[in-house]
Amino acid sequence: MVLHLVPRCSARLFWASPGWRRTYTQGASVGLKSLGCPRHRHSPLACRGYSSASGSPEVILTPERYPVQRLPFSTVSEEDLAAFERIIPGRVVTDPEQLETCNVDWLRSVRGCSKVLLRPQTSEEVSQILRHCYQRNLAVNPQGGNTGMVGGSVPVFDEVILSTALMNQVISFHDVSGILVCQAGCVLEELSRYVQARDFIMPLDLGAKGSCHIGGNVATNAGGLRFLRYGSLRGTVLGLEVVLADGTILNCLTSLRKDNTGYDLKQLFIGSEGTLGVITAVSILCPPRPKAVNVAFLGCPGFAEVLQTFSTCKGMLGEILSAFEFMDTECMQLVGQHLHLTNPVQESPFYVLVETSGSSAAHDAEKLTGVLEQVLNSGLVSDGTMATDQRKIQMLWALRERITEALSRDGYVFKYDISLPVERLYDLVIDVRTRLGPRAKHVVGYGHLGDGNLHLNVTAEAFSQELLGALEPYVYAWTAEQRGSVSAEHGLGFKKKNVLSYSKPPEAVKLMQQLKVMLDPKGILNPYKTLPAQA
Amino acid sequence: MVLHLVPRCSARLFWASPGWRRTYTQGASVGLKSLGCPRHRHSPLACRGYSSASGSPEVILTPERYPVQRLPFSTVSEEDLAAFERIIPGRVVTDPEQLETCNVDWLRSVRGCSKVLLRPQTSEEVSQILRHCYQRNLAVNPQGGNTGMVGGSVPVFDEVILSTALMNQVISFHDVSGILVCQAGCVLEELSRYVQARDFIMPLDLGAKGSCHIGGNVATNAGGLRFLRYGSLRGTVLGLEVVLADGTILNCLTSLRKDNTGYDLKQLFIGSEGTLGVITAVSILCPPRPKAVNVAFLGCPGFAEVLQTFSTCKGMLGEILSAFEFMDTECMQLVGQHLHLTNPVQESPFYVLVETSGSSAAHDAEKLTGVLEQVLNSGLVSDGTMATDQRKIQMLWALRERITEALSRDGYVFKYDISLPVERLYDLVIDVRTRLGPRAKHVVGYGHLGDGNLHLNVTAEAFSQELLGALEPYVYAWTAEQRGSVSAEHGLGFKKKNVLSYSKPPEAVKLMQQLKVMLDPKGILNPYKTLPAQA
Repeated sequence: MVLHLVPRCSARLFWASPGWRRTYTQGASVGLKSLGCPRHRHSPLACRGYSSASGSPEVILTPERYPVQRLPFSTVSEEDLAAFERIIPGRVVTDPEQLETCNVDWLRSVRGCSKVLLRPQTSEEVSQILRHCYQRNLAVNPQGGNTGMVGGSVPVFDEVILSTALMNQVISFHDVSGILVCQAGCVLEELSRYVQARDFIMPLDLGAKGSCHIGGNVATNAGGLRFLRYGSLRGTVLGLEVVLADGTILNCLTSLRKDNTGYDLKQLFIGSEGTLGVITAVSILCPPRPKAVNVAFLGCPGFAEVLQTFSTCKGMLGEILSAFEFMDTECMQLVGQHLHLTNPVQESPFYVLVETSGSSAAHDAEKLTGVLEQVLNSGLVSDGTMATDQRKIQMLWALRERITEALSRDGYVFKYDISLPVERLYDLVIDVRTRLGPRAKHVVGYGHLGDGNLHLNVTAEAFSQELLGALEPYVYAWTAEQRGSVSAEHGLGFKKKNVLSYSKPPEAVKLMQQLKVMLDPKGILNPYKTLPAQA
Repeated sequence: MVLHLVPRCSARLFWASPGWRRTYTQGASVGLKSLGCPRHRHSPLACRGYSSASGSPEVILTPERYPVQRLPFSTVSEEDLAAFERIIPGRVVTDPEQLETCNVDWLRSVRGCSKVLLRPQTSEEVSQILRHCYQRNLAVNPQGGNTGMVGGSVPVFDEVILSTALMNQVISFHDVSGILVCQAGCVLEELSRYVQARDFIMPLDLGAKGSCHIGGNVATNAGGLRFLRYGSLRGTVLGLEVVLADGTILNCLTSLRKDNTGYDLKQLFIGSEGTLGVITAVSILCPPRPKAVNVAFLGCPGFAEVLQTFSTCKGMLGEILSAFEFMDTECMQLVGQHLHLTNPVQESPFYVLVETSGSSAAHDAEKLTGVLEQVLNSGLVSDGTMATDQRKIQMLWALRERITEALSRDGYVFKYDISLPVERLYDLVIDVRTRLGPRAKHVVGYGHLGDGNLHLNVTAEAFSQELLGALEPYVYAWTAEQRGSVSAEHGLGFKKKNVLSYSKPPEAVKLMQQLKVMLDPKGILNPYKTLPAQA
C-alpha cells in the first residue's frame, strides 16, 4: 500500500547528493571548493582511495593502460583560462587536488589528466565556453554525476571538463500532464523527491540516483529499474536543449507529447554520450505516482520455469507489473556470504523478484495472490514470499540490488551488460561457467529479465590477463551470434567503444561516424568515446 | 469484459485491405493489375471519383495548385524501365489508369503525374532499385498505404513510385516478449489480427488501419488511439531495416528492448516521411492483449471541468486508462445531423470518452465506477453512461470517431492537427470561432485530450481563399505563441512543409537540412516534402 521510496543500496555505492536546498542556492556565490564531483567531498566510504593522498593506490592513467593516442587538440593556455574566467567568473577550477575526483571514474578504472574544470550555470555560458573551445580546437569532456560504467564521463587525456553540476534548476512542472522541465545538472533523486511531492514519479530509477544527473541519464539513455513499466527515455523525454560543438544553442525543449514537425533531432543526442552535443536542459514526462506497491520473491527450479513465471506474470498482472528481476543461486550465496542477507525462501537454482505498482492496493494484492497460487500449484515456483509493507519490500529488493556490492567483495569482477533473446539469456552464463572452469571464482547471472537484460559477472582473486583473454572476445562473439547487444544499458564510453561492431553492421558504424563528423567536425566533444577510431 | 476489436468507422473512410491469405500468397505470381493502391480495386465507394473515368472531377495537378518547381532530376527512360523490369520482373506498372490511384492522395487534394509504379518484394530489390535511381538521378516517392493527411505519400511531379504493398510478410513473432518483426508493407489491421490471435495487441491503432502499412506508420511516426497508453513509436519500435538513397541496406532490425551500442540510427528514419531512407522492415514491441475494456461517455459543463475530469481519471484509473478523448457540442450536433447518431447523455457543452483496458473486468469496472461517482458528485460531469459490452462500446466510440465523416458531409473542411498545453487547448477553438464569425459554417474542436492533441476543423460551403487567409497563418502563429506543434501527428509531407518554422527554431531547421544532405546528397528521396525548400 505504501509507495516504494527505498533508497535501496545506493547509499553504499554512491553518495547522497547535496540537499535540495543547496541545489537551489547555487545561484549565489559558489566557491571553487564546491566541486562538480560530489563523492570527494561527502562520503568517507566513497572518498577512500579517490586520491593518492588518501593512501590507497592511485588509478593508472588511461593512456598508460590502454592503447590510445592523444589527438592533435590544442592545450589549455593561460589565455584560455582567462577567457573561461571572463565567461564564468569564479567557477574555473584548476587546483590539482580538486580536479582529481573529476579525472577518475567511480569504478576507479580510468583516469585522465585534465587541468581545468568549468562549472557553468546557464546554457548561454555553455555556449560561450564551447564557442571558445571550438575556435581554439580544445577538446571537451562533458560531465554529469560521473557515475557511468564505461569510462565515458572522465577525460582520457587533458580534455577540458565541462560539469553540469551547477545547472540544477527546475524550470517548470505541470501538475496535470506531469511534464517536468529542468536543467541538465539536476540530480535524479532530487527530481524524484520533487515530483513525488506532487504525486508523480520520475519515469526512470537507478542505483546511482543519488549522484547521477538527468542530463547524464539522457546522454547515456539510462535504463534501470522502471524500464519494464515506463519504457525508454526515447519515449518519455519530450524535449531537449543542447549546445552543439561550435556553441550553437539548439532549443528543442518542447513540452508536447506529440510533435511531428520535421526530424526528431533530440533523438540524436539521447544516448550519444556527449559526443554530439552537450545536453543543457530536459523536458520529461512523469507518470502518476502509484498508490500501491507489492513485491513477491520466488524460488524457481530451473530457468525454463523462470521464463514461464514471467509469461504468467505478464498475462495475469498485465498493466500493474512494474519489475521482473532474476538472480541465480550463486548470487544468493554471495549476498549471504559477503553481506549476511538471509534467503527468505527455500534454496532454489533461480530466484525472481516480481513488483507490482498500481492504483488500488486491494486489486493489486488480489491479482498478485492469484499469480502466486497459479505458479505454486503448477510447480513453476517451489517457494515464495510476498511483501506489502515497506520494510519487507526493501529487504526483498536488497537481495537483488546488493548483488553488485557482494560481487565487489568477492574479488576482481569482470562485468558484462548484455541484451539477449530471453530464452537464451542464461545459456551464456552456463557456457562461460563451463569455459572458465576453476579459473573463475564465481560466474553469476542476474538482471532485468523483463527487459532481456543480463548482467553476467565473473569474479577472480585478482585481475588476470589470461582470464580476460578467455572472456573476450568470447562473450561478445557469443552475444553477436544471438543478435544481442554487447551493451544493453551502460553505453560504450571509452572502455567498450571497440566492441561496437559486435552489435552493429559496418554500414551503421559508418553512418554513425558521418553523424559525428557532421555535428562535431573538429571532434572536440568527448573524444576517444563511443565510436571506434576511424581506420 | 470483451476486447475492443471494433473496426470503428474506418470502413467508411478507408477500404478493407486484401485478406491475409492474399497477403501471404504474394510470393507467387502477382499480375500487373494487382496494384499498390488498394482503393482502386476493391471499394466502389472509394473508387468513386478516383479517376476521371469514373465521372467525378479530376484532382488538379499539384504544380498547378501550389507554387512548386520541378527539380532537375532525370526523366524515366525506356532504358530505366528495362532496368527495373530486370530487377522486379512483372512488377513494373506503367498503365496510366492503374497509376492514377497512386498519383492521388486519399483526401483528393494533391496529384502527381508519375509514369511508373514499382512493386518490390524484398529489401534487396529495393536496394537495387534505389541504386539505379541514385546513379541515374531519378526521384523516388516511397509509398505505403497512401493514407497520409499531408500529401506526403504521392508524387508531386513524375517521381518513380516505390510501393511497399508486396512487402507484406511477417518475419517472426516471439510469444513471450511480444516482439513482432515484419516487412514494411504489412497492413496494420492484418498485423493486429495476427498478434491478437497470439494474445497481444499492436501498440498503435488508427482509423486508417485497414489500408495503412506499418512501414508508413513508422515513417510518419503515427500517433492514433493507443498513444496515451502505449506511447510513441519511438519507444515501441525496436529495430528497422532501411534502404538508403544510394541503395545501401542499413540493417538495424534488432529485437532487443535495450541496446546502447552507439547512436540509435533507427530514430532518424522514424517520422522522416521517406525523405532519408526507405523503411523495408520493422521490429516492434506488442503489449499483452487486455482482458477487459470499459468505456464511459460523459457530458461536462465546461472545458475546465473536462480538464479536471482528466486529472481525476489519471489519478484514480492510473495504469488502466487507455483513452481520454474529447469533443465539443458542435461535434455532437454534426454527428447527429449528418449521421443520425444519438447523443446517449444529456446535451452538454463538452463530452469526453474515457476508455480503460486492463487485466481484470471486475477490478476495472470497480475503478471506473468509483471515478464516475466522484465526477458526478462533484459536478465535473453532468451526465454519463458506461459500456462494458462490445456493441455499446462501438456505439460510444462511433460518436467520437465519426466526427471526421460528419465534417466531410458538412462542406469544405479546413483541418488543423495541433499540439498545445492542455489548459490552452480549447482557447484556440474559441478564438478562431470569434475571428471567423459567420464566415465559417462550423468551427469545432475535438481530439486526443490525453495527449494534448487538438483537431481543429472549420467547415464552409466551399473552399474560400478569404477564409484560408483568415485561418493561416493565424492558427500557426497562435500555436507557435504557446510553443505548440503545428503538426501533432500528421507530419508535414508536401502540404505543411512550409510551416515547420512555426514549431522549430532556425538552428533546428538548418540541422534537419544538413541531415537530409548527408543521407540523401542528390535529394532523390521523396523530394518537395517535409523540409522547406532551401533559400
